[in-house]
Amino acid sequence: MAFGLISIISFAQTYTGPKEDIDQILKNIESFSSQVIAGDYVAVAANYTSDAKIFPNNQDILEGTAAIANYWKPSNGNQTIAHKVTPSELKILGDEAYDYGYYEGTTKLADGTESSWRGKYVITWKKVDNDWKIYLDIWNSIPN
Amino acid sequence: MAFGLISIISFAQTYTGPKEDIDQILKNIESFSSQVIAGDYVAVAANYTSDAKIFPNNQDILEGTAAIANYWKPSNGNQTIAHKVTPSELKILGDEAYDYGYYEGTTKLADGTESSWRGKYVITWKKVDNDWKIYLDIWNSIPN
Repeated sequence: MAFGLISIISFAQTYTGPKEDIDQILKNIESFSSQVIAGDYVAVAANYTSDAKIFPNNQDILEGTAAIANYWKPSNGNQTIAHKVTPSELKILGDEAYDYGYYEGTTKLADGTESSWRGKYVITWKKVDNDWKIYLDIWNSIPN
Repeated sequence: MAFGLISIISFAQTYTGPKEDIDQILKNIESFSSQVIAGDYVAVAANYTSDAKIFPNNQDILEGTAAIANYWKPSNGNQTIAHKVTPSELKILGDEAYDYGYYEGTTKLADGTESSWRGKYVITWKKVDNDWKIYLDIWNSIPN
């Protein structure tokens, strides 16, 4: 194993690759959730590469910043009041990476009721201008 | 670009990496579909690494050969009579790779009626004993 690479297994979380890359991606995952909760869909879309693809269930593949921003734009008075992503594994492969794991959150609906949800995901990342951006983002549900 | 690497774009399909790796993965994608249609769930499961994870909608992550074979085992008299995977992009990253694209198929139900479906997927691959195996396999639907 080359100097500077780490492989940590704790609480069933496996991170493999250079520490600074892992730290950057974990930081980006955290700020992604903060931006979703803030309803800042422009900032959320900026987490993706300009040619990124997202794979929402029961829709076609959506590609590019405008389509992705539109997907994350809060609608119908709904508000995401909790959003958390827990990677199970994160692996750096040079200037690309992938992670998979679980997400969970709560939406406050326009009528004031709250709906919680959770699911699982796979993301592939690309290193762009010394930062890490999401290139492919696919997920689906787990029953509550 | 190093000798032996190719990057082909045709009909919106992008393959990047050593030609023998790309050819092997494309061949495996084809035989996967043949095995699904044959109902040979043991052969289907052998396309995955022993620690692979699949992400069926509305279920938890399923891990390992036994769970994956069980998922692909035909049940309730249903028979998959068509199965086709069309990668949009396939990228080799050393001994790992990812591809994403579309799948479609037809199930013949126990009552004789047929149901067609399609969707989109992301797969990550690992090179194991000079062959390519699926490590992560996640997908969800596109409405017909």
